[in-house]
Amino acid sequence: MSQLPAPVPAPVVEIAATAFRNGTVTAQTRAVPEETAVALSYGRVGYAVMMTTPCDLIDFAIGFSLSEAIIDRAADIIACDLVTVEGGIECRMEVAHDVAARLAQRRRHLAGALGCGLCGLESLAEANRAIPRVTTTRPVTADAIMRAMRSLPLHQTLNRRTHGIHAAAFLDPADAALLVREDVGRHNALDKLIGALARQDRNPATGILLMTSRISIELIQKAAIAGIPVIVAVSVPTAHAIRAADAAGITLAAVARDDGFEIFTHHARIEFGAHAHVA
Amino acid sequence: MSQLPAPVPAPVVEIAATAFRNGTVTAQTRAVPEETAVALSYGRVGYAVMMTTPCDLIDFAIGFSLSEAIIDRAADIIACDLVTVEGGIECRMEVAHDVAARLAQRRRHLAGALGCGLCGLESLAEANRAIPRVTTTRPVTADAIMRAMRSLPLHQTLNRRTHGIHAAAFLDPADAALLVREDVGRHNALDKLIGALARQDRNPATGILLMTSRISIELIQKAAIAGIPVIVAVSVPTAHAIRAADAAGITLAAVARDDGFEIFTHHARIEFGAHAHVA
Repeated sequence: MSQLPAPVPAPVVEIAATAFRNGTVTAQTRAVPEETAVALSYGRVGYAVMMTTPCDLIDFAIGFSLSEAIIDRAADIIACDLVTVEGGIECRMEVAHDVAARLAQRRRHLAGALGCGLCGLESLAEANRAIPRVTTTRPVTADAIMRAMRSLPLHQTLNRRTHGIHAAAFLDPADAALLVREDVGRHNALDKLIGALARQDRNPATGILLMTSRISIELIQKAAIAGIPVIVAVSVPTAHAIRAADAAGITLAAVARDDGFEIFTHHARIEFGAHAHVA
Repeated sequence: MSQLPAPVPAPVVEIAATAFRNGTVTAQTRAVPEETAVALSYGRVGYAVMMTTPCDLIDFAIGFSLSEAIIDRAADIIACDLVTVEGGIECRMEVAHDVAARLAQRRRHLAGALGCGLCGLESLAEANRAIPRVTTTRPVTADAIMRAMRSLPLHQTLNRRTHGIHAAAFLDPADAALLVREDVGRHNALDKLIGALARQDRNPATGILLMTSRISIELIQKAAIAGIPVIVAVSVPTAHAIRAADAAGITLAAVARDDGFEIFTHHARIEFGAHAHVA
């Protein structure tokens, strides 16, 4: 892994604005999130371009590669360099020989199946790809979830400045410490978190994923591939995401607020404790 | 345009959940947004799959086709049928002969330039595609914006049930009526709105786009292609979106709340009125 400092733009930018509040017009500045096109390439062949908040990009590259099932482990990426290019940043990865061969095979298969090289094309089969099943049975207490959700805003350093950046956080109930990654895109925040877990050689199956966003199908897919058994989200999940979490064996809780949360799938992993009142 | 009723799933679904609130566990139901894979095809050739809230899908297909610059006007779509297929809905469009020829040319060009048929592939050039410039100079009053933002929640019929669906709305200051479209994806909500405007043969240049979401680059691209001169958003824009709005000649206002909003680009189109206090 290259350790050279990369010329990455700042993730938060101060911008001049004209405020119109309560009938008064004033000049001000506002901190807003940056959004940069990041091109992910393997062996110099482009794979995808994602609009991301430019921070923790090595975590992002590794998490994205894991979520897309391009690699099986962080070590499959032999080198990862961030290169400033026209229009954005290229995240240039070199992969192990067997990974490169598998990727080339996959390209050929997809090109053949779809018969088209159009940008942005995805098949319905890809949108509904099979999701692996998470089988961990380890329980987690409602109290641990509540404590983690309450402490999450303290770790959202970019969002505190901008009020416009999502966070994905991993709680290991054994040590109560939160690992947090931020991005304007909730799916990118989760990929950064998954990459950070892999780089720290931590086991996603031992913990809980906290998301500040709503939960849609692709977040369930990413969590299932990473093997995370419990997801707690601030906003509502989609019906499709609930069905996918159910099929994947994932406990999905959401609408997490100061007073509690709601559980939609696989309730058995969550323990309410002796003092909870069951109505 | 086919007028046959399509077997589309309901956009909102009631789901059983276990609520844990203030230490009490209760069974309840919650209304959540549906999310369906919609495959957009032209002449039976697949182009893209989008996860959308299944409503106003004909508007969506036409708006998406306009935003992607596949068509120049709604009438370029000769037929549009919604067909239930394995894993989602196919939105099957037949296009005018010259559009089909242009699309085939574009496919060949992209396949050649990228040399790869991989799903999800997009080039950096595509992410940073040139944005047309909006030149309308017609002013809009801060009062009209405030009134429209206050009335918007009344029109968000799906969000009122779910609290998890974005809205894109078009305000024509001449008649003060709002045209509103909803979707879990903010970009889809905007494409539905753009399609609805085109089907009603309304001129986007005469009005204002209201978005309940944050504003990122792709929303600026869509608005510019549609020719909408003013955008007002509830959440913050990204720095990249602000730069794009500036380059596209679009007035971008955001952080719109009950007490006002902030203007980031092309301030001249917004008139504060004689009673505004300039600090």
